Amino acid sequence: MLIRNYRDVAAEDVEEDAESVKIRQVISKEDGAPHFAMRVFELRLNGYTPRHSHEWEHEVFILSGEGSVFDACGQEHKIRKGDVVFIPGNEMHQFKNTGKQLFEFICLIPI
Amino acid sequence: MLIRNYRDVAAEDVEEDAESVKIRQVISKEDGAPHFAMRVFELRLNGYTPRHSHEWEHEVFILSGEGSVFDACGQEHKIRKGDVVFIPGNEMHQFKNTGKQLFEFICLIPI
Repeated sequence: MLIRNYRDVAAEDVEEDAESVKIRQVISKEDGAPHFAMRVFELRLNGYTPRHSHEWEHEVFILSGEGSVFDACGQEHKIRKGDVVFIPGNEMHQFKNTGKQLFEFICLIPI
Repeated sequence: MLIRNYRDVAAEDVEEDAESVKIRQVISKEDGAPHFAMRVFELRLNGYTPRHSHEWEHEVFILSGEGSVFDACGQEHKIRKGDVVFIPGNEMHQFKNTGKQLFEFICLIPI
């Protein structure tokens, strides 16, 4: 069993097509996770993740702040603490911080 | 893309060997999730989950309250908001609410 606080995991810069985004790899393959990995993203003021798609799905839980997610139709949806987002594989998406606080969310992907 | 607040998902009683535990199936196979499912547990005052083990792993993130997790050696570890727990498959475990508030956590399992 592994127990750690997510804030004790180093926050690394996400650089490619992203702005003011950091990622913490809180449960990964290196920890022995066989099927899926847990990461925590933080988007600072005006931060955003790339607008992109990929084969794998995302399962997301918003921890703090206010933001938006763009969907495959180009529509922007407001999301906030306690919201859950499921993005199927190959679907276009982008997260943005639209508030005045840090926007943090858990994002899981298959390994 | 599916967006919902976890509190809008019905909380169902967990009955077998559990006390004062409810579960919300926030992202499941029924939503099209291909690899893993996201659930949110709530343990009311003095609530606990079964002390058990099973083949599949858990990836856990504590959302609110204070609790404990028993490990395979029978040791109790305090856990609170922001803590992450990885429980490999076949490892004995049990969660308890040891605080005075609702103890809530996300728990993911493979599908």
